[in-house]
Amino acid sequence: MKIAEGDYVLILTSDEKKYLVEVKDTSFHTHKDFLDLKDLIGKNYGEVVYGKKGEKFYVLKPSLYDFLMKVERATQIVYPKDIGYILLKLNVGPGSLVLECGGGSGALTTALAFMVGQEGRVISYEKEPKFQKIAIKNLERLNLLDRVIFKNVEVTEAFEEKEVDAVFLDLKEPWTLIPAAWESLKGGHFLGILVPTANQVSRCLLELQRLPFLDIEVSEILLRQYKPNPERLRPEDRMVAHTGFLIFAKKVVEK
Amino acid sequence: MKIAEGDYVLILTSDEKKYLVEVKDTSFHTHKDFLDLKDLIGKNYGEVVYGKKGEKFYVLKPSLYDFLMKVERATQIVYPKDIGYILLKLNVGPGSLVLECGGGSGALTTALAFMVGQEGRVISYEKEPKFQKIAIKNLERLNLLDRVIFKNVEVTEAFEEKEVDAVFLDLKEPWTLIPAAWESLKGGHFLGILVPTANQVSRCLLELQRLPFLDIEVSEILLRQYKPNPERLRPEDRMVAHTGFLIFAKKVVEK
Amino acid sequence: MKIAEGDYVLILTSDEKKYLVEVKDTSFHTHKDFLDLKDLIGKNYGEVVYGKKGEKFYVLKPSLYDFLMKVERATQIVYPKDIGYILLKLNVGPGSLVLECGGGSGALTTALAFMVGQEGRVISYEKEPKFQKIAIKNLERLNLLDRVIFKNVEVTEAFEEKEVDAVFLDLKEPWTLIPAAWESLKGGHFLGILVPTANQVSRCLLELQRLPFLDIEVSEILLRQYKPNPERLRPEDRMVAHTGFLIFAKKVVEK
Amino acid sequence: MKIAEGDYVLILTSDEKKYLVEVKDTSFHTHKDFLDLKDLIGKNYGEVVYGKKGEKFYVLKPSLYDFLMKVERATQIVYPKDIGYILLKLNVGPGSLVLECGGGSGALTTALAFMVGQEGRVISYEKEPKFQKIAIKNLERLNLLDRVIFKNVEVTEAFEEKEVDAVFLDLKEPWTLIPAAWESLKGGHFLGILVPTANQVSRCLLELQRLPFLDIEVSEILLRQYKPNPERLRPEDRMVAHTGFLIFAKKVVEK
Repeated sequence: MKIAEGDYVLILTSDEKKYLVEVKDTSFHTHKDFLDLKDLIGKNYGEVVYGKKGEKFYVLKPSLYDFLMKVERATQIVYPKDIGYILLKLNVGPGSLVLECGGGSGALTTALAFMVGQEGRVISYEKEPKFQKIAIKNLERLNLLDRVIFKNVEVTEAFEEKEVDAVFLDLKEPWTLIPAAWESLKGGHFLGILVPTANQVSRCLLELQRLPFLDIEVSEILLRQYKPNPERLRPEDRMVAHTGFLIFAKKVVEK
Repeated sequence: MKIAEGDYVLILTSDEKKYLVEVKDTSFHTHKDFLDLKDLIGKNYGEVVYGKKGEKFYVLKPSLYDFLMKVERATQIVYPKDIGYILLKLNVGPGSLVLECGGGSGALTTALAFMVGQEGRVISYEKEPKFQKIAIKNLERLNLLDRVIFKNVEVTEAFEEKEVDAVFLDLKEPWTLIPAAWESLKGGHFLGILVPTANQVSRCLLELQRLPFLDIEVSEILLRQYKPNPERLRPEDRMVAHTGFLIFAKKVVEK
Repeated sequence: MKIAEGDYVLILTSDEKKYLVEVKDTSFHTHKDFLDLKDLIGKNYGEVVYGKKGEKFYVLKPSLYDFLMKVERATQIVYPKDIGYILLKLNVGPGSLVLECGGGSGALTTALAFMVGQEGRVISYEKEPKFQKIAIKNLERLNLLDRVIFKNVEVTEAFEEKEVDAVFLDLKEPWTLIPAAWESLKGGHFLGILVPTANQVSRCLLELQRLPFLDIEVSEILLRQYKPNPERLRPEDRMVAHTGFLIFAKKVVEK
Repeated sequence: MKIAEGDYVLILTSDEKKYLVEVKDTSFHTHKDFLDLKDLIGKNYGEVVYGKKGEKFYVLKPSLYDFLMKVERATQIVYPKDIGYILLKLNVGPGSLVLECGGGSGALTTALAFMVGQEGRVISYEKEPKFQKIAIKNLERLNLLDRVIFKNVEVTEAFEEKEVDAVFLDLKEPWTLIPAAWESLKGGHFLGILVPTANQVSRCLLELQRLPFLDIEVSEILLRQYKPNPERLRPEDRMVAHTGFLIFAKKVVEK
C-alpha cells in the first residue's frame, strides 16, 4: 500500500534517530537536512528518500510499539514490555470489551483499541480532562477513536458497564475500585492493576483477598536491550529498572 | 455466556492448582476429589462447583495466557513474556498477515492466530510433521484453526508468500532464512527472531547488517513473580533466567 | 603448600560435581568410584588423583566462596552474591571489629571471620543454641573459631559491646534492634540489615528515619550464571530470583 | 578515633550529596555553603559540623565502598557489586598474594590491597603509565601503597611471579594471557577475568577449555537499588544494566 496523506510514517535518519510524523503539507527538519513531507505521498514503505541537502531518510512503517514509544505524554505511561504481557493476561483480542480506569495519556488505551478490532470496544475512564484530551489525540493518529468510549468522570462507587471481559486499573489508590471492578466483570474473568510501589501492591492484595478474586499473580517485567554489534555483543550500559508492579486476578462468584 | 460442551475451562482447586480441561463426557480427577465435567454445562464462568467428596472447584475462563502456559509441548515454546512484546514489535493485530517459520508446538502460532482475528492470517512453516500435529491440536482448543495455514515444508530458499506484514523466525540457524524473510516482507515492515544463544545473535546481526534491514534491536525480557502475600511481599525464590534473545529489524529497499 | 591431614579440599569429579571434604582417615565415595582420603596427604592442590576403579578426581583448593556454598545449614543462609557487597558496604577488612545479630548457620560469620584477620574480631549473637552449634562447626572447618566470640543470648535491649566498626542484623524483626545497633556503633560507622520482604524493608526504614542514621541505601543483588559453552553461550535456564533486600545506613550523632 | 589531618572523610550535605575529601588546610565548598576542613581535626566521625552560613554537614567514615565509588578514574572501573563477588571467588583475604593484569584506575587494586592486609601483597600490572599514576593516587588515599607492587610493563608472554594465590585479568584480549596466568598460579587456585562482551567470553572459554582449567563459571551481577521511602517503597527508575561478564576457573596440573 502506498503512503497517503494523513498516514503516520516512521522516519529513520542516517544517525539512527527515529521520528514519527504525519504525512501532510509541511516539512520535516533535522539538524542536518529537511524534507517536504508531501513528497512521501505515493511512495512505498521501506523506500529511501533524499533530503534537500542529500541526506538519506528511510521511511518505515510504524509498528504499534513505535506508536506507543512516541505517544504524546502528560503522565507516566504504561510501557510496551508491560502492555504485551497485560494483553495476554487479560485475554484482550478481536471482539473484547475492556474497561480501563486511569487512562492517562492513552498508551495502554491505544494498544487495547488496536487489539480489540472493529467488533471490540474499550471504555476508558479518566478524571483529568487534560489527560483525556491527549489520549484522544494519540488514538487519532492510528484512527482508533471509534473503538473507544472515553468517559471523563471520577468514579468512586461503580462503573456504569457490567459484564465486561476485562478491567484494568491504573490509579493512585486502585484498591478503592476493586469492588467496582468486581461488579463490572463477567464471572471468571480478568482484572489487571498497575502500581509503582510495593506498599500499593500490599494494599491491593488485601482487598483482593477480602473479595471473591482468585488466581492472583504479582509480577514485574524487566527489558534489557543489547548493543546490536555482532563482534562486540553486550547489554546496553543502563536500563529502566522499574516501571511498576503488575497485579492480576480473576473474579469468582464466591470464595 | 454459559459454559457449553466443547468449551475449555480453567479449573482452580482449593490448593491453588490450575487445570485446563475440555468440557465433555468424562470426569476430572485430582488426588482429593473428582467431578463430572458434563455437570459444568450451562453454568457460568466464575462459579464454584463441588466435587463428589465435597471439594470446591472454581471454574474460570482461561485467558490467552492460560492457554499458552498449558499448551501441549514437544519443543521449547515461546513464553508469554516474550510473546506479548513480539506482538507489539511486529504490529500484529486484527487483519495482519503474519508468516512464522519454525512453528514448533504452536505457542506463538496460537497467540498470533488469536490476535489477527477472522480477517487476518497466519502462515506457519514447520518441517517436523510431529511438531505441527501438536500445534494443530493446540490451535483447535481455541477454535483458531481456520486462521492458520500450516505448511509442513523445510524452507531453504524462499517462502511462497510475498508482501506479508511480519515474519518471525524461530529456528536453529535463522540467519539462513533472513534473505527469504526480506523477500517476503512488505517494505518498511517487521522481522522478528528468537534465538537462545549469544553466538546466534551475533550470526543474525551479521546477516542483518549485510542486507537492507534497519532499526535493529536486540532484547531480552525477564519476568519476576512475587508471592502474593500482602504482609510478607517478596519475589518468588526462583525464576526463569533465560528463554531467548529477541531480535527485531525492519526491511528497507536499499541501505 | 602440600595437603595435610585436617585440611579441607574441594574434590571435582569428571561429571563436574564438587565435594568439600576433610582430609582424614576415611574414604570418599561417589556412585562411580572411591578414594582413601589419607592418600591426598603430601599431594599438591590441582593434582589429579585416581580412584580405586580408575576415575579421575581433581583436588582443588576451596575458596571462601566454596566454603560458603557448602556450609552446613539449618537456616536460610546469606549468599555469596550478597556477602561480597556487604563486606564492602560495612568496610570489613583486616582488623575490623564487627557485631552480627542473628548469626544463624554462620555463612556470613565465616566470611566476616575470614576477612577481619587475626587482629580483627567478630561478635556473633544467636538465640538458638542449635544454630550456633552449626555455625561453630562451619567456622572450625576454616580454623577461624578464635576470631569469633559467640554469644548465645536473645538480645532485646542492648548489645554489650560499644564502639564497634560495623553491625549486621539478620533477624525477623530487625527494627527492634536498630536502637541497640546505634548504641553499639562508632560514630559515622556502618549498619547493615538483611530482610526477605518488602514490608520488613518499610518497617526498618521507618525506624532508621526516626533515629540518627543517614546515607540510607536499599538494594538487591541478582546473580545470573551462564552455561560456559563458548559456541553456545547463554544464561542458565533458571536462577535464584530473591534472597533478600539489603539495607545500609550510617550512624550520626544527631540529625 | 578522632579525625586527624590527612584522613579522608565522607561529607554528607543536607540534600543527600556525598563528597570524599581529605582533611587538610583548605576549604570545602558546595553551592550553598563552605567549611574550613582544618576545623574537622579532633572531631569524631558521625558529628554534625555547621558551615559558615549555617548549613549542616555530616562527617561520616568512608567505607571501602565509598572509596571505590569515589575513585578518580581514567578508565572503566570494576564496580563494587562485582568486586565483592570477585573477592570471595578468588579467596582474597588477609595474607593473600594476588596478581592482577590491567589494573587501570585501581578500583579493584584498592579493594584487593584493603583485603590482603599487611601480610598480603598485590602485584598490579598496567601498561599505560598514566592509568597507573591514577591508581597510585587512589591507593594513597587509603594508605595502602605499601601492599602493592606496581609494574608498568606490557606482558605478552609470562608474569615474573610464580605460585600466586589468585590472578585477575581485566584486559581487552585476556585470552592471550590465560597461559601466563596458568604458569603463575598455585595448583588448584583461582583465576578471574572481567570482559564486557559475550564474544570475549566465548574466546576466553575456548582458551580455558584448551588449557588445564576446571570449575569454570560465567556470571553477571545486577544491582538494583530502591528509593528508601517506607511508605512508597519502589526500585529506582533506572539502573546499571551491565558492567561486565565475570569468568572464574581453577588451575589443575592436567586435565
